[in-house]
Amino acid sequence: MSKILLAFVAAAALAAPSFAGSVETAAALRDKALTDATAWNTLESITTEIGPRPIGSPAYLRSREWAVAKLKALGFTAVHVETFPKPAWIRGAESAEVVAPFPQKLAIIGLGSSLPTPKGGIEAPVAVFGSYAEMLEQPPGSLKGKIAVVNQPMTRTQDGSGYGAAVEARSGDGEAAKRGAVAYLVRSISTGTGRAPHTGSSGGPGPHIPAAALGVPDADLLASLAARGTVRVRLNLASSINPKAVSFNISGEIKGREAADEVIVIGGHLDSWDPGTGAIDAGAGIAITTAAAKLIADLPVHPRRTIRVVLWGSEENGGSAQAYAEAHKAEVPKLVIAGESDLGADRVYQVALPQGIPGLDEVMAPLKVIVSPEPPRHGGSDIAGLQKAGVPILGVSNDATRYFDYHHSADDTLAIVDRAQLNQNVAVWASLVYLIAESGIDFHGKPGAK
Amino acid sequence: MSKILLAFVAAAALAAPSFAGSVETAAALRDKALTDATAWNTLESITTEIGPRPIGSPAYLRSREWAVAKLKALGFTAVHVETFPKPAWIRGAESAEVVAPFPQKLAIIGLGSSLPTPKGGIEAPVAVFGSYAEMLEQPPGSLKGKIAVVNQPMTRTQDGSGYGAAVEARSGDGEAAKRGAVAYLVRSISTGTGRAPHTGSSGGPGPHIPAAALGVPDADLLASLAARGTVRVRLNLASSINPKAVSFNISGEIKGREAADEVIVIGGHLDSWDPGTGAIDAGAGIAITTAAAKLIADLPVHPRRTIRVVLWGSEENGGSAQAYAEAHKAEVPKLVIAGESDLGADRVYQVALPQGIPGLDEVMAPLKVIVSPEPPRHGGSDIAGLQKAGVPILGVSNDATRYFDYHHSADDTLAIVDRAQLNQNVAVWASLVYLIAESGIDFHGKPGAK
Repeated sequence: MSKILLAFVAAAALAAPSFAGSVETAAALRDKALTDATAWNTLESITTEIGPRPIGSPAYLRSREWAVAKLKALGFTAVHVETFPKPAWIRGAESAEVVAPFPQKLAIIGLGSSLPTPKGGIEAPVAVFGSYAEMLEQPPGSLKGKIAVVNQPMTRTQDGSGYGAAVEARSGDGEAAKRGAVAYLVRSISTGTGRAPHTGSSGGPGPHIPAAALGVPDADLLASLAARGTVRVRLNLASSINPKAVSFNISGEIKGREAADEVIVIGGHLDSWDPGTGAIDAGAGIAITTAAAKLIADLPVHPRRTIRVVLWGSEENGGSAQAYAEAHKAEVPKLVIAGESDLGADRVYQVALPQGIPGLDEVMAPLKVIVSPEPPRHGGSDIAGLQKAGVPILGVSNDATRYFDYHHSADDTLAIVDRAQLNQNVAVWASLVYLIAESGIDFHGKPGAK
Repeated sequence: MSKILLAFVAAAALAAPSFAGSVETAAALRDKALTDATAWNTLESITTEIGPRPIGSPAYLRSREWAVAKLKALGFTAVHVETFPKPAWIRGAESAEVVAPFPQKLAIIGLGSSLPTPKGGIEAPVAVFGSYAEMLEQPPGSLKGKIAVVNQPMTRTQDGSGYGAAVEARSGDGEAAKRGAVAYLVRSISTGTGRAPHTGSSGGPGPHIPAAALGVPDADLLASLAARGTVRVRLNLASSINPKAVSFNISGEIKGREAADEVIVIGGHLDSWDPGTGAIDAGAGIAITTAAAKLIADLPVHPRRTIRVVLWGSEENGGSAQAYAEAHKAEVPKLVIAGESDLGADRVYQVALPQGIPGLDEVMAPLKVIVSPEPPRHGGSDIAGLQKAGVPILGVSNDATRYFDYHHSADDTLAIVDRAQLNQNVAVWASLVYLIAESGIDFHGKPGAK
């Protein structure tokens, strides 16, 4: 097709949203998204002007003003903040070292919700296990007075399934405590070789003991030392709880032109862990979904249905999914579908939804995105509450091959974001969400919707 | 060739060192090296039992005992320690943060020999430059009261030449001070995207001011912030000097069977920077060269000439090259050639020496190593003193493509070492050094030898 004809078709498509025209509009949105600067600028803004924003931190409070201002500046309407109580765990000074037989510092980071160590720290011999299952095989009392160490590697996969298989170990402090351990150290849930430890919520059942993640090389180091004999480690973890902290889910809308009360919910989460700047987890999710909605808002006419972008406020420590579902339970029948971008900024390779949309395959094909015939099982932590309440969900799968090299670590910064892949995400979300918004498809009651 | 015939030829080669037989022995050594465990075990030992070993640290002192014991255990003779005075710079607590307009912590690491900041630190506005040349263009006084920041990227190259082009910026505190700056921050001399900052010696001419390296993303962050307006940074660097510290060059020999006074000097350096465990810089150099010499020592008969492995004691802060050359100046005419392994453990792609050796190309071919027709210009920092004194040098080029992702940072650990490539290094050094030791070639006075 000539450039002139292409411009004509695109212009016609933008002006005349019949459903056939909608497919053309979706294709035009897709192509525009590939060079649009909104997502990059939004991601640069949050990582530069806010940086790490764990709940309970001053930066998290600043991120509230940032989010409201950003949504308004991008032309969203009905921008508002929904506050909910969420006690916050606040990190203090942390350190660890091998004391004997060969003194050496260890790279560690406390796990979210971990208990602090007593003043002066804990010094104890370690018991190292090559897998979490191996620790669970130990009888009660067998770890008495010891620091339990689980050195279980994580498998690298495109779909991120290696995380699900490995992350249980991060919540293992209760199981270690039941066996008598005085503290718990877990190899970072990471596919990388870097020394920066990866934090995350410990979040398991009690009884609780101080718990931290080791850098990958540090976990291997303890295993190597333990193979030589008794190893003594000193651990210091300080932390505090703010029981009165609040979190907030923040949203803005692109109002639908015909069925404004039918709402498509998309978004990413505003909070992040603290060692990096929260670029891939999940500044990218915010950047991608707001940029996609903004591109749709810039069309000559809005699509039929309303698009709502939500910046969920407490994903890493939980809470925003339940708060959002509770606040919006009356709206459930009118929520068309919900989707979250929370697996970084690398290219999308698959989308899944409860029912097909005419033309979707063709729109996705140039982006090398497969439309899955299987409905999604999981769409993201922050929409799990809506999903449970019966809202159909959307699955957008990022290539997660390298995501867990950086996730929850100091290396989660803008430096690891590939701008072309970020924009491919925007192209997927913009064209997909537009087609859903323009279609009259009711996904409720379809396979995969609960 | 059948396995039985191959074993026969190898055995015959090991037993009968005519020079044609030497080529066969070199090939047999090469093949044995590819599966030999000595290098890996040595590297695992130093990173696990000693860890980071900057001069002036307790670990550095322990590394002396480690080195003597390891050389003796591997069967080296004439093991001895040459002590020399070397004042040591000792790192203290360090931190930095953006104070305004958007508070955020910065990942930094003090540069070796940096001055400490005054108690309470330095807080000042920053002046950010995209290259070191750009800072040098500024007139005197133009940086008065400011923290100078150089955000100059390093180019990734196979031969490591990007380092030479970029590293001058690390010694720029004197130039910043001349223009009035109160402190100096330089983007890590790194090809990576990780947040772990890369240290190194500041080592330039004065006047000196406190100087530190920024994580790569942190340097970009300051540039992004500076593009928005005035940025204030707070910097705290503590350090001290031990003026009475000593370093040591430690060596052991495989005595030659015919010309024991003709000595081939090879080795790596014992000291390391402190954030990692000194695996690629330069535990690997020690592991590779000792393993190569050990394989040669295990032959039924030693080669004609003596092979000496030297573990140089102060490469990172300088001093061992001069001390070694001074202590061995009388020996220079008898030093056949000198070589150092100090560019990590990734595969060797080229060797260079002042003159060809019959059969060398054929021995190197299966290792995918080119024998350069050009004599080497540089063999390693620790043999620079010998080179200046007239000792011919050997150039062994590692693929340095990813070396500077990790170099001088916390990520320099055993986790990034590829065992197969480590052994390819041993195969190169063992076969090459054996051929030199067995040959009667005099490299003195040849092209490239000074």
